[in-house]
Amino acid sequence: MERVDLIITGEFVLKGPSNPPISNGAVAVLGDRIESVGKKEEVLSHYTAPKILERPTGLVIPGLFNAHTHVPMTLFRGLADDLPLKTWLEEYIFPMEARLTPELVALGTELACAEMIRSGITSFIDMYLFEETISEVVARVGLRAWLGEGLFDFPTPAFSSGFDALKETERLIEKWKGHPLITITVDPHTPYTCAPDLLRQAGKMADKTRSFLVIHLAETAWEDQEIRTRYNVSPVRHLDNLGLLGENTLAVHGVHLHEKDLELIKKRGVKLVHCPQSNLKLASGVAPVKKALDFGIPVLLGTDGATSNNNLDMFEEMGTCAMLAKGVTGDPTAVSAKDTFSMVTSIAARSLGREDLGVLEPGACCDIVVLDLERPHLRPCYNPVSQLVYCARGGDVTDVIVGGRILMEGGELTTIDEERLLNRIKRINLG
Amino acid sequence: MERVDLIITGEFVLKGPSNPPISNGAVAVLGDRIESVGKKEEVLSHYTAPKILERPTGLVIPGLFNAHTHVPMTLFRGLADDLPLKTWLEEYIFPMEARLTPELVALGTELACAEMIRSGITSFIDMYLFEETISEVVARVGLRAWLGEGLFDFPTPAFSSGFDALKETERLIEKWKGHPLITITVDPHTPYTCAPDLLRQAGKMADKTRSFLVIHLAETAWEDQEIRTRYNVSPVRHLDNLGLLGENTLAVHGVHLHEKDLELIKKRGVKLVHCPQSNLKLASGVAPVKKALDFGIPVLLGTDGATSNNNLDMFEEMGTCAMLAKGVTGDPTAVSAKDTFSMVTSIAARSLGREDLGVLEPGACCDIVVLDLERPHLRPCYNPVSQLVYCARGGDVTDVIVGGRILMEGGELTTIDEERLLNRIKRINLG
Repeated sequence: MERVDLIITGEFVLKGPSNPPISNGAVAVLGDRIESVGKKEEVLSHYTAPKILERPTGLVIPGLFNAHTHVPMTLFRGLADDLPLKTWLEEYIFPMEARLTPELVALGTELACAEMIRSGITSFIDMYLFEETISEVVARVGLRAWLGEGLFDFPTPAFSSGFDALKETERLIEKWKGHPLITITVDPHTPYTCAPDLLRQAGKMADKTRSFLVIHLAETAWEDQEIRTRYNVSPVRHLDNLGLLGENTLAVHGVHLHEKDLELIKKRGVKLVHCPQSNLKLASGVAPVKKALDFGIPVLLGTDGATSNNNLDMFEEMGTCAMLAKGVTGDPTAVSAKDTFSMVTSIAARSLGREDLGVLEPGACCDIVVLDLERPHLRPCYNPVSQLVYCARGGDVTDVIVGGRILMEGGELTTIDEERLLNRIKRINLG
Repeated sequence: MERVDLIITGEFVLKGPSNPPISNGAVAVLGDRIESVGKKEEVLSHYTAPKILERPTGLVIPGLFNAHTHVPMTLFRGLADDLPLKTWLEEYIFPMEARLTPELVALGTELACAEMIRSGITSFIDMYLFEETISEVVARVGLRAWLGEGLFDFPTPAFSSGFDALKETERLIEKWKGHPLITITVDPHTPYTCAPDLLRQAGKMADKTRSFLVIHLAETAWEDQEIRTRYNVSPVRHLDNLGLLGENTLAVHGVHLHEKDLELIKKRGVKLVHCPQSNLKLASGVAPVKKALDFGIPVLLGTDGATSNNNLDMFEEMGTCAMLAKGVTGDPTAVSAKDTFSMVTSIAARSLGREDLGVLEPGACCDIVVLDLERPHLRPCYNPVSQLVYCARGGDVTDVIVGGRILMEGGELTTIDEERLLNRIKRINLG
């Protein structure tokens, strides 16, 4: 018998979106790596562990990636809904953000982490303000994250200029280099809130430090028009002209993309991040996801921030993604459950250069989520992937492990004092 | 002190979609009626009860209406996803339905009831086969329901002809007359699966018995074309020509409605039932909900069956409804959280002629749902209605009361043996 650190058993183990589910399966974990995945009887006959999570009605899956969010915005949840975009941004979001402090950002980040762990998210990509504060909270809580300070032409509550924020980004990249969970990204906010010079400098910084560059792109019809007016080209072409499109570029939203934009995105190896609920709620439109997939462009999925969603539930987001693509194309086979589940696991992992994430394979990093299938809305369970995309909800998750560390066990968070956190949240009022 | 049967307290009590939430509220219940709603201290100083549900972090709301479903289809959950419509219907749904027996229908109904109670649904409208079996299960479980046997030109597993099924409908109407929970409706399936004579007879039966008539209408572009080819008019006009449109008509889907159809629907007092997730998933399109509301047409909301959704979660459905309307109209103020919450409470109740449902007012029927707000995705809670529509999920419901009877208390179902039910579900295989 070989000794490992942890064994997790389940009614089904899903190694990845393309694998058939293993019924009565188990995963053996050694340190932060998966040692073995297979039938429960085989795993238990080869391995012994001091800790065994027996989940006879559990569905064991790779942890989910939330590929776009602004974690501290959980603080503003429900404060600005059903509003015209200009009112939303200028009369609510900006004034609320002006009141942010590192303390509030830390609190909102911890709330988002609690919510994401409870929803089966093990990795996320964040763009916001005070990102150093965010990175410290996330590292402490134990989630995996790609984090970038938002760069703007104008001052933010955190920095007096985009160039200052960019300098800070370089410092943070150095600070977190080699950390097992935290990676810093370079995040110019949009093509319309960053002048060409700031964008160019951001692109150079990303290339120099071999970092990912994350940018909101082609979100609204207004942006498309504005960039064409200013620069006489589409937002996508504008970024390409500035040297910002490459394999390390994550373009978020991509709602208003023309055929030529998609060609260019494909050619440059850019990854798209789709945020369907946010795009609907802010009335930005519907991204051409099926078309992007047909082009062979990697598409990831994100919730966006809690003011435009308003939760951070990737199960809901998967459902919306898969259903919406069908409804708007008229093709009920478009963006299948399997396609969608890939977007939040293996495709997200590969897009971030991490082949060792998003799958449950020997040697892969141990980022594992367990859902309890023993609930009326998840029975019968003929097709676990279909169940994940069309039926499951964040609340069905019982256990979450990141890099071998248990962040939730049997529905209890282990790295966050949830009662204290919620009490602190209730004491602040940003309304 | 006045004696009542039950008092429920909450962090917030929401009397209805248009009322401001009462913080530290309470509801006093006598028999199947609400006796009083107000501040907790006032209610507790006037009333005493043998049972008090203390929910210090609870959000107390009127029970939700699921205005369209086919409850036994929970048995087929996940068996037929991501398929072309014709394949879905002819190679999966019809052959699976051919194997149905009253025993299986009873089982699928109980599963759906368990799921709906857990998701805060207290009333639902169902159209399916073996509806007498369904009605018996629902009455035993204690949900409120409007139930109709589907009428078709062709034989079903339940009846050899639509006229036979219609005769059975008349018997069921008599059988359940005066029952506090069960009401029978007259349910011709569609304008294309029912010949004009069957439709006309159904309309007459509904009028004669003062019943609601429920019909799938204008769901797909194919239907629109087919009816125009057969009868040279739109599906809506076709039904009107047959005398089927009136204040007792509930038209389900209404995806492909033209301006003149909406005018006619408004003029006749027809109610529309919107099923956004099903319409997306089957690639039928997006119903013009904002336009229908602008016309002053009452719009209800439904999940449809579990093969086209695939859960029966009205919180998710509300989120999709509110967000989708914004995304497709380009108007971020379209179909607000309040509008959406009305669709599943007061509008649904009024549309069914039940002013005493869908609100928490003295004298109203006691159909009450409590959600637990003490969860990361529901904090902070600035706006309970926004929280219900954009953040909450079925799993947040802790307590459900229908007609004064507790169907779920503290997360435990009281009228369904859930463990036994789920074990029975696991033993059948319809795949």
